[in-house]
Amino acid sequence: MRFLETTHADRLLERPFRLGAVPGVMWTRDQPGQRTALVLLAHGGGQHKGAPAVAARARRYLKELDAAVVSIDAPGHGDRDRGGRDTLFIEQLAQARRDGAPVGTLIEEYNADVAAQALPEFSEVLTAVQALDEISADVRIGFWGLSLGAAIGFPFVAGERRITAAVLGLTASDQLREQARRIRVPVQFLLQWDDELVDRAAGLGMYDALASTEKSLHANAGGHTAVPRFELESEARFFTRHLAVPA
Amino acid sequence: MRFLETTHADRLLERPFRLGAVPGVMWTRDQPGQRTALVLLAHGGGQHKGAPAVAARARRYLKELDAAVVSIDAPGHGDRDRGGRDTLFIEQLAQARRDGAPVGTLIEEYNADVAAQALPEFSEVLTAVQALDEISADVRIGFWGLSLGAAIGFPFVAGERRITAAVLGLTASDQLREQARRIRVPVQFLLQWDDELVDRAAGLGMYDALASTEKSLHANAGGHTAVPRFELESEARFFTRHLAVPA
Repeated sequence: MRFLETTHADRLLERPFRLGAVPGVMWTRDQPGQRTALVLLAHGGGQHKGAPAVAARARRYLKELDAAVVSIDAPGHGDRDRGGRDTLFIEQLAQARRDGAPVGTLIEEYNADVAAQALPEFSEVLTAVQALDEISADVRIGFWGLSLGAAIGFPFVAGERRITAAVLGLTASDQLREQARRIRVPVQFLLQWDDELVDRAAGLGMYDALASTEKSLHANAGGHTAVPRFELESEARFFTRHLAVPA
Repeated sequence: MRFLETTHADRLLERPFRLGAVPGVMWTRDQPGQRTALVLLAHGGGQHKGAPAVAARARRYLKELDAAVVSIDAPGHGDRDRGGRDTLFIEQLAQARRDGAPVGTLIEEYNADVAAQALPEFSEVLTAVQALDEISADVRIGFWGLSLGAAIGFPFVAGERRITAAVLGLTASDQLREQARRIRVPVQFLLQWDDELVDRAAGLGMYDALASTEKSLHANAGGHTAVPRFELESEARFFTRHLAVPA
């Protein structure tokens, strides 16, 4: 894990890094000290590790919680090369939109392919971050991902015993619902009531399938990209509740 | 509106009052000053104006928001006389439970009767509280009610132009859904995913029916009385967002 140039602004440090082929960024408060909380961020489709919706989460969480917040580019996104699969998807999506054809299945299949590649990368990044001196040995780890980030997040959280709590949402598929049945940690699940990409009943089925004792569904009016700003605050409180060491 | 003895604890004032036949209580911070926010609390069935779930809300809200929080006993509840209708309901409910019979319709009909009587009382109490010197002329007003409190709250908020934002939930009926269609203010709607008294689809239909541009559904795992403690904090943030005067 190799850190590149550090940016310092608004009492936060922003440190881009690379781990092999994977570009990432780690945000922390600018005070020194070991972090006892860590949140992994998995951006949505077409976005990247530092996209506004992602960086806003890092900033908001760090107001509440003294954590390390780590975001990586998904395969085919951000600073990573696009492969044939990515280019094909972009063309198919553009064509379907020109034709006014449904895009749900296209996105679902592409997201599943991206997730298959992203899963080992997230595990490797997590292992590398945990090995840093600045991360406490008993760090508590959260995961945030919506849409493509949740297509990664459902199998990741289902299979990864290191995760303590997760914010997921804006996705649904038969395959992911089976992963949801394996998740037992607290989950805050976001659903957009008028989502043009995710069927409402299928979304509710994802929440229903979660095996977690503590699971909250936050549905809001509006389409796929209209998650209200106040949900960022709610996510910050959720992670603080589950990851912060009691004073 | 006649105030009775004042209790002072934990930097809060608790002031019971009566308005005609209606017993109520008003909580505020103990610092003097005009309140620019007001939250009305409508307790659930079998509870009363100062029940733990109600008083806990007052305390939690007042941590976030410099408000007057007002709670009144519903007809047939708390310090009020039980009438024939109340006694009949209590007997029918006990009998149905002994028989293992469904209780949803019984509760729905009783709640509608209680709400019909409670609606003008809430309006009168609101008018009397607004007339107090300690309440600002341009006070912003919120309403909280779950279960019976929402059977009152849906028609109250639908018909009462003075309400700015409402927390409602744990109830559903065809009649109340029609009231929901008239509500346009921001609403946070609570639903218990495994509610033994409220059908899940009917509950989701209540949220769907709201005409509000900003409407959030918070569903949680568990039965009718298992609303998690963290929802109190979320309610406090919701009311602060909508009722607090920006600094």
